[in-house]
Amino acid sequence: MKTRGEFGFIEFIKRHFPDSEGVVGIGDDCAVLPAGEGELLFSTDLLMEGVHFLREESSPEDVGWKAGAVNISDIAAMGGTPVASFLSVALPKDAQGEWAERFIDGFAQVSQLYGVSLLGGDTTSSLRDIAVNVGIMGRCHTGRRGMRSGAKVGETIYVTGPLGDSAGGLQAILQGVDRTDDVKVLIERHKRPIPRVKEGKLLIDSGLVGAMMDISDGIASDLRHIMRASGVGAVIALDMIPCSSELASVCHEYGWDKYRLASSGGEDFELLVTGPENLDKILDIKLLPIGKVVVGSDLTWTIEGKSVDLEYNGYEHF
Amino acid sequence: MKTRGEFGFIEFIKRHFPDSEGVVGIGDDCAVLPAGEGELLFSTDLLMEGVHFLREESSPEDVGWKAGAVNISDIAAMGGTPVASFLSVALPKDAQGEWAERFIDGFAQVSQLYGVSLLGGDTTSSLRDIAVNVGIMGRCHTGRRGMRSGAKVGETIYVTGPLGDSAGGLQAILQGVDRTDDVKVLIERHKRPIPRVKEGKLLIDSGLVGAMMDISDGIASDLRHIMRASGVGAVIALDMIPCSSELASVCHEYGWDKYRLASSGGEDFELLVTGPENLDKILDIKLLPIGKVVVGSDLTWTIEGKSVDLEYNGYEHF
Repeated sequence: MKTRGEFGFIEFIKRHFPDSEGVVGIGDDCAVLPAGEGELLFSTDLLMEGVHFLREESSPEDVGWKAGAVNISDIAAMGGTPVASFLSVALPKDAQGEWAERFIDGFAQVSQLYGVSLLGGDTTSSLRDIAVNVGIMGRCHTGRRGMRSGAKVGETIYVTGPLGDSAGGLQAILQGVDRTDDVKVLIERHKRPIPRVKEGKLLIDSGLVGAMMDISDGIASDLRHIMRASGVGAVIALDMIPCSSELASVCHEYGWDKYRLASSGGEDFELLVTGPENLDKILDIKLLPIGKVVVGSDLTWTIEGKSVDLEYNGYEHF
Repeated sequence: MKTRGEFGFIEFIKRHFPDSEGVVGIGDDCAVLPAGEGELLFSTDLLMEGVHFLREESSPEDVGWKAGAVNISDIAAMGGTPVASFLSVALPKDAQGEWAERFIDGFAQVSQLYGVSLLGGDTTSSLRDIAVNVGIMGRCHTGRRGMRSGAKVGETIYVTGPLGDSAGGLQAILQGVDRTDDVKVLIERHKRPIPRVKEGKLLIDSGLVGAMMDISDGIASDLRHIMRASGVGAVIALDMIPCSSELASVCHEYGWDKYRLASSGGEDFELLVTGPENLDKILDIKLLPIGKVVVGSDLTWTIEGKSVDLEYNGYEHF
């Protein structure tokens, strides 16, 4: 497939994202947006070929979806509404045609599903690696947002869904295991994460949440961010962490450590929440208790109520 | 120099950018900013090693300065005030220590000079190439901003300073010419561009500007954006384009085409402005007339008042 050139590619992108009213989008030096009410939320993620995705393993549509989804998830983590995104792509020669356009298709899919406009960005060539940066802007009511610093001793720690599927899917890809139906489910969860925007808003609107964040590096790492920001410790019952039946069966088949995948795998993009007991029943959303906020600064893991000596850590890039 | 690890590097960055009041900066899922009044301006640029800079040619501080400056310049191009930036860096192993920290030094220099806070970003490893993405947010009064679409037939076309220095500096680097004092000036202009924030605001506040943008790809390309957006043609007097004495002397020395560098070189980051005759005298800022907005859709070049047949084009990345 022939490349359309840089400006042709920009036109291709514009057709996927109709202009929003009252907004200046792609095509001037800056995008322009009315300031509006309340507070603005910003997040940004940089994805590198070979680090965050492999061209031979992920379809361009999947990379596009995930690039959008992980940023939308950051807005969800604050209980905000995602509004607008900014997309920078650096493309080596062999990705300037079909790869780039299929990437935009996937990015547009997740953007449209969550009502996010694309308001600007940058396109450039790259010597070797594909680089994709997504910036996202969201909105929330003043002061009504989920922070990492609000956890209080005695609160219950919840997650909004099963953990470890994404890490299991990645491990299946890396080890080249048979693509059974169960394995396919895990790989799909790895490639097409679902940001919890609705759940995040409901949680924050309730006024009952202590601390909240999304799980990107694994709870072993992410929970420590909450603990440090809030000045508290935590006890997590490994055997209460929800796992999908697919993960359980694949782990059984290959002898993988389910607890490790669920606690340290990352990229599940479920929400990690602290709040009162029974918050799940009060709000009538899927919210699964996995532990307690306690005095101190330690993270303790338990199985069947007994402390276990595991040193699980999340992912650090360098 | 040993790397501090990803979280150590983030701490290093935070120390360079003190928290702003009323703002949640680095350290949570999102940065949080009061919406405030007026309109918000957004721009983003992705810089790739080997395309936008060479590690052996540019100091890390210079790359950091330029990464900030080109984004601040986009805000200047709208007549806005730069407020906050978001910085993503992908670092291969051999850039994770000293290179990264010196890069932050340069980025902090230009940010502090223009009062821009760093509110968030992303750090990750890279297989091979360094990638840097800067997102910037600025503010302006509602509707009071420089657009590409406002040029009117009969207006004079101005620039805020000499053109071609940056392209001359790049050519000097690429051709490895002797670093005379004149050459050093050009290279400095290439590596440390000066965004025209004050001039941009003065111009827009005057209410007299037709169209405005910053010169990143060369006027041959950039002026065409204004012409297309405004539905007008233009006549540019090549011999009226301001050139520095340094550029003139280096071009003379090496037989370089001064007109080509000044019209198509790019990266000068001066402002390209249309407005009434004598706008320079009305506003008392440096504003140099180089041509006229005319009926039609053609860009005509003249020398000594006579049309010349030159097909100068700006830079297209792919």
